[in-house]
Amino acid sequence: VPVVWAVVVAGGSGARYGGPKQFALLGGRAVVARAVEACRAVADAVVLVLPEGSAADDFGADTVVAGGPTRTDSVGRGLAAVPEDVEVVVVHDAARPLATAASFAAVVAALADGRAGGAVCALPAVDTLKRVDRAPETGVEGGWPVVVETIDRSRTVVVQTPQAFVAEVLRRAHRLGRSATDDAALVEAVGATVRVVPGDVRNLKLTTPADLAYAEQLLDA
Amino acid sequence: VPVVWAVVVAGGSGARYGGPKQFALLGGRAVVARAVEACRAVADAVVLVLPEGSAADDFGADTVVAGGPTRTDSVGRGLAAVPEDVEVVVVHDAARPLATAASFAAVVAALADGRAGGAVCALPAVDTLKRVDRAPETGVEGGWPVVVETIDRSRTVVVQTPQAFVAEVLRRAHRLGRSATDDAALVEAVGATVRVVPGDVRNLKLTTPADLAYAEQLLDA
Repeated sequence: VPVVWAVVVAGGSGARYGGPKQFALLGGRAVVARAVEACRAVADAVVLVLPEGSAADDFGADTVVAGGPTRTDSVGRGLAAVPEDVEVVVVHDAARPLATAASFAAVVAALADGRAGGAVCALPAVDTLKRVDRAPETGVEGGWPVVVETIDRSRTVVVQTPQAFVAEVLRRAHRLGRSATDDAALVEAVGATVRVVPGDVRNLKLTTPADLAYAEQLLDA
Repeated sequence: VPVVWAVVVAGGSGARYGGPKQFALLGGRAVVARAVEACRAVADAVVLVLPEGSAADDFGADTVVAGGPTRTDSVGRGLAAVPEDVEVVVVHDAARPLATAASFAAVVAALADGRAGGAVCALPAVDTLKRVDRAPETGVEGGWPVVVETIDRSRTVVVQTPQAFVAEVLRRAHRLGRSATDDAALVEAVGATVRVVPGDVRNLKLTTPADLAYAEQLLDA
């Protein structure tokens, strides 16, 4: 069994949705505390990355560090607090309090044969996805965005966390100095293999206010 | 104002999730009846495509036809019931009962200058999406699926219905005889321009049992 540490990243301000959901209460406990606890399924220790100036609470983590301007920066700061002799690092979003022990176990197990640098849990894409010629947020002011192609859904996955990495590969990937929406993208960029294990539909990411109410429902069920 | 007909497609059996959600009750009314009603925002008449052998109920539609083996077949059968002189056809999923009048108006308006063959409503992609080397449903039996690339999320949209089409272009697209997860993909395949208008986060597609409970919540809010 490798030495595993987890980095839980709660760096986001959640500005678009009226405040960070990771500090909201879910079933009477902070979302971030649930995310930290979930990592204990596989992690010997948990580093929690909090936005700078957050409350002094450690939410049950072993180490707390201050986040950076981007998600990638925040994970990088958490990674810097992981001892050199740790073999596997699991990265998890604080806004995913309902990740199961099975998901954590699966991403770590996918690294066991030493032939992959990372593993992510993911769901098959169920929506129709299309590539467009400009960011959809631009709206119709500069003309409508136009479809470039429909993405092959049968070969596309919707990625969640937890994501597990060979520690040395993740460190190398972060030294690229790039920014990405997940750590696996950086690991892909250094040429390492990233495996995909089945995610869980209940492992939702709390982004909108409605998500929190939905999570309460899932917790009750 | 063009003559607009809607085709509401309820062809799916919903086998994966324990029965078709389109016939469930939402706020005391059948989901499909709500989807038909929503089309009235723009449609002069509504053709409803039901799975063969369904109840004789018309759910408020003007015409009911029997669906085919695939979604594309079902839309095609609905389209065959639309008179030749109709200028714009709006296609809508029966499992999307909460589509707003604004979404219907937006997709029809996007065709008004005559320079596009279709328009879809869509949301910016918020999840990290990755292309994989094999269907994720295959699981780990033939080895783990492996990531091929992380998709550029900033240029990707998650497509909803309603989708509006120049009737003649949609008919031509369906004559290709291909199957696709949405009608816009067929229209793209005949080389017509498909525009993207802003979708609505509340316009969810009811696929899992949990979605229905969530939709009840949205309806109450």
